[in-house]
Amino acid sequence: MTRIACRQLAPRVGEPQSDRLRATAAIVDALESGAQVIVLPELATSGYMFDSVDELRAAAVPASDPLFALWSELARPTDAVVIAGFAELADDGTLFNSAIVVDGSGVRAVYRKTHLWDREKLFFAVGAELPPILDTAVGRIGVLICYDLEFPELSRHLAIAGADLIAVPTNWPRMPKVAGGVRPEVVIAMAMARINRVAIAACDRSGDERGQQWNHGTSIIDLTGDIVAATEEEGGTAIAELDLSLSRDKQHTALAHALDDRRTDLY
Amino acid sequence: MTRIACRQLAPRVGEPQSDRLRATAAIVDALESGAQVIVLPELATSGYMFDSVDELRAAAVPASDPLFALWSELARPTDAVVIAGFAELADDGTLFNSAIVVDGSGVRAVYRKTHLWDREKLFFAVGAELPPILDTAVGRIGVLICYDLEFPELSRHLAIAGADLIAVPTNWPRMPKVAGGVRPEVVIAMAMARINRVAIAACDRSGDERGQQWNHGTSIIDLTGDIVAATEEEGGTAIAELDLSLSRDKQHTALAHALDDRRTDLY
Repeated sequence: MTRIACRQLAPRVGEPQSDRLRATAAIVDALESGAQVIVLPELATSGYMFDSVDELRAAAVPASDPLFALWSELARPTDAVVIAGFAELADDGTLFNSAIVVDGSGVRAVYRKTHLWDREKLFFAVGAELPPILDTAVGRIGVLICYDLEFPELSRHLAIAGADLIAVPTNWPRMPKVAGGVRPEVVIAMAMARINRVAIAACDRSGDERGQQWNHGTSIIDLTGDIVAATEEEGGTAIAELDLSLSRDKQHTALAHALDDRRTDLY
Repeated sequence: MTRIACRQLAPRVGEPQSDRLRATAAIVDALESGAQVIVLPELATSGYMFDSVDELRAAAVPASDPLFALWSELARPTDAVVIAGFAELADDGTLFNSAIVVDGSGVRAVYRKTHLWDREKLFFAVGAELPPILDTAVGRIGVLICYDLEFPELSRHLAIAGADLIAVPTNWPRMPKVAGGVRPEVVIAMAMARINRVAIAACDRSGDERGQQWNHGTSIIDLTGDIVAATEEEGGTAIAELDLSLSRDKQHTALAHALDDRRTDLY
């Protein structure tokens, strides 16, 4: 069993030092609780509601930032893997909405969001590469960021590539609940998990930031598409233990297979 | 506004004449209630729980069967379109799990299910073509059958092809409800609707057939992914009025577009 923790932080634009501290504290807390996979929200170290590119640039850092080396050091005594969103400043000055994957060995991957939502297009460049999948001590972890989940092409890609778990840092702007009292973005995550028989850990944010409310939709979802842990609380944590190796069995039934039943001759 | 009706029939293997009568009666009822799109379950005229291919063959009919000409005659005074599942006997004797689309002008299309669920593989051949999309008096209607919905590649195909509504005859075997008290197959339908900004009318079946229970998941879903009408009742009807032309606007927001935001350079 793998212990997964998602911490629904509330970063604030213009306070990157405080955001970084709170993200680090969340990782320490999660490690202390025995978490082996720790997921933080999208843009956890910078906030989201930028007024200008200058404001974003002031909070953006490269993947070589000492913060991520510190996270790696914190994780080192354990098998833990940390996935967190951050505003990335690339070597050539380009700004990306990225997620970093860190374990005790260092920075394992940086994923640059390939589907930018709404006003993000005014601030960030889109990533040029499909999301990564990492072999870690606790299994194969794929990464998506927020709106990426609404493109089933990507969840499918990660499932085919063998992801045991898809970690999804998100900042889900508040949307009305749909039937069943669930937020629509969570419905989409549930569907992606079940369709692909893969576990999904989506870490949303909280906090009123410049008038923007959020879904508080943090959810850990098993491969049947059911929510096994969630929090709607401001700053809450969702924790679940999942047998991630189950994601390697794609049989829905003896004669139905989530991936082999695709009609690759038709699409 | 287009009035859509889904009737949760309970066909029974071995009683095709009775199944045909009840399907026809459901169409008459729906027409009398002013329905312009009428969706019946998968295999509505034959039942589902076949013991043998012979039993299936005895209930299978070609698309030229007089039943469908009768349905067309019933629909003729109106703009109505009927979509229903049936066991199809092809000219060469092959058996397909198909859906027929009928309006006042006759049989408009036959779709042969491209993803067969579990034991269906023992009885039916898979269809060789992507699902159709029909220009009708009430808009462009795409068709999927049941398990097809779990392959987002198909909903996506229909949305790109311009479907205003996806009609989905289904026979959803009973599965435990997931978070929110919704059946997982309905969660998937909700996600497909929202991701593609397209309305979905899924007509499930009811009735204990040879010990098999069903989801009773009949749901009409708008393009936000919310359920606007549903029935869990044995033999119940879900009715909703939807402005299907809304499906032509794929903008989630001023700067986010359900289809244009795909990264066709990556997948």
